Amino acid sequence: MRMRRKKHLEERLADCGDMIIYMDRADRNYQVKDNKELIDCEALFGNSNPVEMEIGCGKGQFICELAQRRPDVNYLAVEKSSNVVVDAAEKALSLGIKNVRFMRGGAEYLECFVPAGIVERIYLNFSCPFPKKSYASHRLTNRRFLAIYDVLLKPHSEIWQKTDNRNFFEFSLEEFSDCGWTLKNISLDLHANEPEDNIVTEYEKRFTELGMPIYRLEAYRK
Amino acid sequence: MRMRRKKHLEERLADCGDMIIYMDRADRNYQVKDNKELIDCEALFGNSNPVEMEIGCGKGQFICELAQRRPDVNYLAVEKSSNVVVDAAEKALSLGIKNVRFMRGGAEYLECFVPAGIVERIYLNFSCPFPKKSYASHRLTNRRFLAIYDVLLKPHSEIWQKTDNRNFFEFSLEEFSDCGWTLKNISLDLHANEPEDNIVTEYEKRFTELGMPIYRLEAYRK
Repeated sequence: MRMRRKKHLEERLADCGDMIIYMDRADRNYQVKDNKELIDCEALFGNSNPVEMEIGCGKGQFICELAQRRPDVNYLAVEKSSNVVVDAAEKALSLGIKNVRFMRGGAEYLECFVPAGIVERIYLNFSCPFPKKSYASHRLTNRRFLAIYDVLLKPHSEIWQKTDNRNFFEFSLEEFSDCGWTLKNISLDLHANEPEDNIVTEYEKRFTELGMPIYRLEAYRK
Repeated sequence: MRMRRKKHLEERLADCGDMIIYMDRADRNYQVKDNKELIDCEALFGNSNPVEMEIGCGKGQFICELAQRRPDVNYLAVEKSSNVVVDAAEKALSLGIKNVRFMRGGAEYLECFVPAGIVERIYLNFSCPFPKKSYASHRLTNRRFLAIYDVLLKPHSEIWQKTDNRNFFEFSLEEFSDCGWTLKNISLDLHANEPEDNIVTEYEKRFTELGMPIYRLEAYRK
């Protein structure tokens, strides 16, 4: 589903200033090795705190809550759609959150913008499951993305994934495993034994209220 | 729960003849390297067909159905309890099944009886989940058992596991992963997309009728 372009989108994006980093893909030919525009996180955030990422942050509810809870961590939140990321950035601005920046663009361009080996955790929350098999390469746990995350993450750092979609979770378990990642802290019904610090998004809340299980995993490289 | 010793058990076991192999552990000190009594499968079955195993076969419903469906495979079915294995062996005898033998004893003794590298598949069906953490070492997907299966299996051969117990399945996924096994064909609700050749035991049927998901995985060494 393609969303209609929001009214005044350009003005609103401009008002968000440097809260949004644009992974411009005008030429659609980013050469990872030759054409990097690497972010300097220390300059960006004004400190050398650890960096974590959410990929597919939607309207930013999760990342804003997390950033408020953990002010000593810096967050990069990636979202493909301008229509959506503008809501997220406005939310962070309205809450006065200083330790988040949003990156507009597809995860396939991340290596051009994020230095290798600096990310201490990646969150994948309720990513689009792309149920059709022919779209499997778009799933954010497809091996082409896992290879990118592997470059971005510090050694032994983790990906934390949550989803309500059973088939997507089965796919994710198999893809991580086949690509040599180690799985831990798997939950096949997160709310049966909910960790105290779990951040429940609106989306997650709705599915849980319908009695549907939320699946969760952590994956890391040994 | 310890079952009462069945009446006439010794006579019934004797009547099963060489349908049951006894992994005798009278001395409780089996030395895997020094004290092997390895089975000669060709002599036992009178052919050189491939060998598969079920570990924890209970009363033998699954293995008897599988053996009848696939007469060109030989099956070794392991069960700890004499009280239970006797029912399984009597069932196989009454059905005239020639390609199954039962092994009475704990899976920890298998290396003393089964030659290394001959098993083409291991089935773990609804194994006891041992929910208490202090009994985790008894779970049949505990790493001490995975190490034994690794010795018994031919290279690249698989373990097929089914269970209705969520926590046991979470444990199994993590244990396989942490021990370097690769996971595939995971199902978090087997009967939502049931494979045609799935053998449904009484136990599985009861849980499915209650609307509870059946979990399944395959694990192999790359």
